[in-house]
Amino acid sequence: MIPFPGWGPSDRSGLTAVEGGVTAVPGFRAAGTVTGVKASGKPDLGLLVADQPAAVAVLTTTNQVKASACTLSERHASDGRARAVVINSGNANVCTPDGEVHTARIAEATAAAIGSATTDVLVMSTGIIGVPLPIERIEAALPGLASTLTADGGPAAAEAMLTTDTRTKQVGFQVTDDQGSCTVAGMAKGVGMIEPTMATLLVVLTTDAPVHPQILRSLLQRATDTSFNRISVDGDRSTSDTIAVLASGLATSPPGVETLGRALQAVCADLAHQVVADGEGATRVAAITVRGAATEDDAAALARAVATSLLVRAAIHGADPNWGRILMALGNAGVDLDPRRVSVTCGGITVCRFGVAASFDRGQASHAMSRPEIEVGIDVGSGRSSATVLTCDLTPEYVRFNSQYTT
Amino acid sequence: MIPFPGWGPSDRSGLTAVEGGVTAVPGFRAAGTVTGVKASGKPDLGLLVADQPAAVAVLTTTNQVKASACTLSERHASDGRARAVVINSGNANVCTPDGEVHTARIAEATAAAIGSATTDVLVMSTGIIGVPLPIERIEAALPGLASTLTADGGPAAAEAMLTTDTRTKQVGFQVTDDQGSCTVAGMAKGVGMIEPTMATLLVVLTTDAPVHPQILRSLLQRATDTSFNRISVDGDRSTSDTIAVLASGLATSPPGVETLGRALQAVCADLAHQVVADGEGATRVAAITVRGAATEDDAAALARAVATSLLVRAAIHGADPNWGRILMALGNAGVDLDPRRVSVTCGGITVCRFGVAASFDRGQASHAMSRPEIEVGIDVGSGRSSATVLTCDLTPEYVRFNSQYTT
Repeated sequence: MIPFPGWGPSDRSGLTAVEGGVTAVPGFRAAGTVTGVKASGKPDLGLLVADQPAAVAVLTTTNQVKASACTLSERHASDGRARAVVINSGNANVCTPDGEVHTARIAEATAAAIGSATTDVLVMSTGIIGVPLPIERIEAALPGLASTLTADGGPAAAEAMLTTDTRTKQVGFQVTDDQGSCTVAGMAKGVGMIEPTMATLLVVLTTDAPVHPQILRSLLQRATDTSFNRISVDGDRSTSDTIAVLASGLATSPPGVETLGRALQAVCADLAHQVVADGEGATRVAAITVRGAATEDDAAALARAVATSLLVRAAIHGADPNWGRILMALGNAGVDLDPRRVSVTCGGITVCRFGVAASFDRGQASHAMSRPEIEVGIDVGSGRSSATVLTCDLTPEYVRFNSQYTT
Repeated sequence: MIPFPGWGPSDRSGLTAVEGGVTAVPGFRAAGTVTGVKASGKPDLGLLVADQPAAVAVLTTTNQVKASACTLSERHASDGRARAVVINSGNANVCTPDGEVHTARIAEATAAAIGSATTDVLVMSTGIIGVPLPIERIEAALPGLASTLTADGGPAAAEAMLTTDTRTKQVGFQVTDDQGSCTVAGMAKGVGMIEPTMATLLVVLTTDAPVHPQILRSLLQRATDTSFNRISVDGDRSTSDTIAVLASGLATSPPGVETLGRALQAVCADLAHQVVADGEGATRVAAITVRGAATEDDAAALARAVATSLLVRAAIHGADPNWGRILMALGNAGVDLDPRRVSVTCGGITVCRFGVAASFDRGQASHAMSRPEIEVGIDVGSGRSSATVLTCDLTPEYVRFNSQYTT
């Protein structure tokens, strides 16, 4: 499920997978429906509701062209409490004349439909930029949507948040330690414009652990830093990235905070992996793991430089153990580097040792790189820190898709 | 010849195009030959020689994985004098066990063949990374190459420096002002790994103007900053980028320094445009011009963010006036930006006005973007500075090519 040694929490003890997405967690109901905002007629409005006000934490994009949904969700989460997350897909409501007004109307209509305060509703929007949102369709659909909320509606909500995704992205873990247990689950969407630096895409996480909003926020930040902030599909950071976690507090005998943090990290790592695996046009996931760096920040910067190089990603598509391009990318990372200390493995086969070609069988290396999940291992010989960044191969299909997809 | 209003020097008075590449300039001879380093049997060794020691200035890549040819050329140019530039293609001699020794041997063999000091020879190498250079082939070819040097050998040398380029890149101008006149010419190679920040690709420039090496260096830096440092093909910065200018000093009645600087800028802008137009898989050149920025650095950073966005470049390939992606890319530039002040034109048609969709005919805009040379004009409404960055469209062919091209 979490395929790479360097990916996700190193300690996975006490974690058991559970089905059902965000509603696998006690205290939450969800639903999804069709409003017609998507021309395809697919589900395009999802709703997650906590039975009682939940502790909440939110992170949003660092892009300066920022969706009004991001701003509103930050504001509504600032008191640490929320009841609902409403998500519309097919239209991002960004760079539209009435964006702010429409976002507020979504929150108001949701609050009316579920009987909560407007300030307890978070809003997420994803899809086309610059086209006015048909707000009436969403307002008209919300009462009906609220009436279909169920404790097994997680998958329906996960379906309704998709855009160019080919599949839903959901995961859940029950986690147990000597203090007790709780459940942590999540759903995500996103396949392009994926280059988070602070938060990412649309991600909704739930847990029944009772936890103070400030602690929840710091756990979320830590989990995001090593998951959604360490993936790259195309280097383009969206205007709408939002990740929200809601905690119902229903677990009567919860685990310790560290255990909760580990479970949150595992959920985020798994969802982030699913996002990369479904990357537009992708045929292969590559974990770029840098070891032997002076600091973790250095390791992450080096891994990111390799993961975002078009030439490296094209070589990964061709199953080409092109370590020269990998060294070229490392040299551009802005981190002190001595090429004579760098060694590189592709699919477990050493292709470069101390900055020069290793003796290896090209056919064998190419075969090892042909799998759907491969690791590029890089030792830079400068210290003891490591980091893994996930990326996918760059394919002609990515380009074809994105040159044909209408605005 | 220089197609975009914002590209190259604004004042082009007194400039007249001349043919013949680097040997259009008095005092230089050149030649090219086949050594067999390239498996294709195409020319792969070029030589430019000044009849007398020339003033010289050199800029090389900022990549930390740096070719030994870059290091040697910097060292040999440090006294401000040089006689020759030798260029081998097909093998970059980077990340090879004997790289430094082989680079030194190329310089020594060249010096012996033309009868100069070894420290007066600059070396450039381009091609595959990590494969040992067949140095004997180059040493064996040099005496014969030197014997074929002629005053019309510029095009042969330009041919010998190519790798995946589809055509040579040469230009020359005679420039005249009220003080006198001189000639400035150049040749370049490069189609991928193009994202210079300090110097770029392989570029050789010649002039007959008598000029002190320190002034030559500052003129070169200025010309490079607004040409080779403002193009991007794929965001990958090479390990071998080098730009060298040699001045024979034979012009008896030269123009003023400002005029020489303008001519050098025009040569660099023209060559940089040729490099982008020949970008791997490219079908179209796009000039991203940002106006109304607070500073020129801001304008360049904003233009570069748009020019390096995969989603924008894929949209340019599809002739899609996708201004939402342009705003997304601007928001990621790390420059203060108010989206409500941003307006965008594609191919001369206003598609976004003050952050929201302008009223325009999509078919007409798409038609305007279907030309081989288009301009994306962006006004950010923050000041009076502007900058233009050239890029090319991202195509399925780029990806196909770079996933099949062997290491």
